[in-house]
Amino acid sequence: MDTDLVAALDIGGTKIAGALVDGDGRILVRAQRPTPAREDGDTVMGAVEEVLGELTAAPLWGRATAVGIGSAGPVDASAGTVSPVNVPGWRGYPLVDRVRAAAGGLPVELIGDGVAITAAEHWQGAARGHDNALCMVVSTGVGGGLVLGGRLHPGPTGNAGHIGHISVDLDGDACPCGARGCVERIASGPNIARRALEGGWRPGADGDTSAAAVAAAARAGDPVAVASFARAAQALAAGIAATATLVEIDIAVIGGGVGKAGEILFAPLRRALAEYATLSFVRRLTVAPARMGTDAGLVGAAAAALTRTAGVSAAGV
Amino acid sequence: MDTDLVAALDIGGTKIAGALVDGDGRILVRAQRPTPAREDGDTVMGAVEEVLGELTAAPLWGRATAVGIGSAGPVDASAGTVSPVNVPGWRGYPLVDRVRAAAGGLPVELIGDGVAITAAEHWQGAARGHDNALCMVVSTGVGGGLVLGGRLHPGPTGNAGHIGHISVDLDGDACPCGARGCVERIASGPNIARRALEGGWRPGADGDTSAAAVAAAARAGDPVAVASFARAAQALAAGIAATATLVEIDIAVIGGGVGKAGEILFAPLRRALAEYATLSFVRRLTVAPARMGTDAGLVGAAAAALTRTAGVSAAGV
Repeated sequence: MDTDLVAALDIGGTKIAGALVDGDGRILVRAQRPTPAREDGDTVMGAVEEVLGELTAAPLWGRATAVGIGSAGPVDASAGTVSPVNVPGWRGYPLVDRVRAAAGGLPVELIGDGVAITAAEHWQGAARGHDNALCMVVSTGVGGGLVLGGRLHPGPTGNAGHIGHISVDLDGDACPCGARGCVERIASGPNIARRALEGGWRPGADGDTSAAAVAAAARAGDPVAVASFARAAQALAAGIAATATLVEIDIAVIGGGVGKAGEILFAPLRRALAEYATLSFVRRLTVAPARMGTDAGLVGAAAAALTRTAGVSAAGV
Repeated sequence: MDTDLVAALDIGGTKIAGALVDGDGRILVRAQRPTPAREDGDTVMGAVEEVLGELTAAPLWGRATAVGIGSAGPVDASAGTVSPVNVPGWRGYPLVDRVRAAAGGLPVELIGDGVAITAAEHWQGAARGHDNALCMVVSTGVGGGLVLGGRLHPGPTGNAGHIGHISVDLDGDACPCGARGCVERIASGPNIARRALEGGWRPGADGDTSAAAVAAAARAGDPVAVASFARAAQALAAGIAATATLVEIDIAVIGGGVGKAGEILFAPLRRALAEYATLSFVRRLTVAPARMGTDAGLVGAAAAALTRTAGVSAAGV
C-alpha cells in the first residue's frame, strides 16, 4: 500500500503556500498565491481556497488523509481560529472549519508558524534527534516553538514557544505588543538596523539599511554594527537561557534572516549564553543555525498533520 | 486489597523529613531529623538513613511500593545524583542508589523540591484541575515547577520550572548564580528586605529586618516598603508572563514566606501581569496563593513516586 499523504498549508502575511507531502517529508504537489493581506477576510479565504482547489484537483489528492496548517499568529488551536497580526481581515477567523469544508471533510490540524518551523527542524533539520529543543525564527519578528520529551509542544492554543515576546529587560523599551524589553524589541532585524543607525552607522551607496547590510558592515569591522549584533545576541541568550531553565532544552536552533548572519551573531551569542545559562542542568546547552529552507513551514505543517495519522511515529513529532 | 503506600523524603538544608503516604495523599507515618548540612556527605546520608530506618521499622512499611524524593537542588534525575547548594558535602552525590539500598531495593523517583511542591499543589492544592500550571516558592530563594498537558514536567534532570534563575533584567544586578537580573535577585525575601533598607526603611523596636517585617510596614502604609514589594511583584510578573508565553500556563500558584504576604504582593502582581502578559493566549492567566502547607514537599514526593505505581491516575501527575 502507498504511504499516506497529507496536505499542508503555510499561511503568512505575504504568501499562502500549499502542498501534498508524503510520510518522508517530500513535497509532491505545490500551489501558491499571494496573500491579499489588506483585503477583507473572505477575500483572503478565497486565496486559501484557490490553493486548496489546485491540491484537490491533483490525482494524488485521493491519498491525502489530513490537512496541517501552520499560520501566522496568534492562532487559537482550541477554537480553530486565527488572528494574524499582518492580516487585519482575519480576527478570530474560523479557518479550521473553512479549510475542512474546502478539503472534503478531512481532519485539520492548526498550529502557529513558529511551531510549524519547529516541527520541521525536529523532523528533518538541526533539531533532529534532540528530545528537548527550542527552534526560533529571528527575522522581521522573532518567533519559535518547543520540542519537549521528544514531542512537539504546541500548547493548548498552538502558540507555545513564542520567545519573541518574553521580557528580558523589564524596564526596557516599550514593545508593540504592550510589554517592555521583549526579545523581539531588541533582537529582530529591524531593531538591529535601528540600533546601528542610532549609533551612527550609515549604509553604503545602495542605501540598504537592512539587518543584512548591518551584518555585512559588522563583518568588515564596523564597531557600531558589531555592537548592535552583540546586543541582539545578548537578548537572545537571555531568552534562550530562560527557556532552558524553565523547561530543560539541550539545543536552540536559530533560523530566519538574522539567523543567517553567521558568526557575527553566533560568536557573541555563545559568549552571552555562558553568562546567562549558569545552572548545572543548562550548561551543556548548544546553539545551531537552522537547516530547513523556505519549505520549513510546509514540511512542519505536514508533520503536525501526520501526528493525526498512522505516520505519527515516522514524523516523530 | 489495601491501597498501596509510598515512602516520601523531603530533603532540605534545614531538615530531612520522611513519611509513608497513601494513595489519597494522607500521611500515615512520619520521621524527621535535622540536616547536618555543614558535615561531610556520609554524615548527611546517615541522617537520611535514620529517617528511612524509622519508616522501614513501621508495620505499614510492607505495603510501600516505591520511594519518592524531593530534594533541594540542583538535582540530576537522569544520573540519580544531587548537589544541593546548602549541603556542600553532597556534590554529584549518588542519593538514588543509597536510598534504594536503604529501602530494600524499592524503585526510587528523584525530583527537585520546586517540582515536588508543584506535584503537591497539582494533586491537592491550588493548581488542582489545571492542566497547565506554574507553581512557585518565593522565600529565601525562588523555585518552581511546571504542570504541562495535565502532567508534571520535571524535565530530563528533574529541575524544570526553575523560574528563580531566569533573567528579567539582562543588564541588572549580578546574581550569585553567575547571571544578572534573575527573578530571585529581585523578588526573594532577602532582596525585598535589602531594597527596603537601602531605600531608608527602618525596622521596629524588635530589630526584625525580614521580608515579613517589610510586609507589615507596607500594610501600615510605609511607601518604601510598598515600593519594594511592588518591584518584587514586577519581576515575578515578568517571569510568570515569560513562562506563560513559552509554554501556555493558565495559573501561577505562589507559595513560600513571601507568597504569604497577601495583597501587598498579589495586588501589584496582578497589575504588573496585565502589563507583561499581553498576547491573546496569555491574557487569561491568573495568580493564586499556594494552599498546601509545610507537608507540600512530602506530599509532592509521594505523588512523584505514585506515578511509578498503579496509583498514577489517582495522583494525576
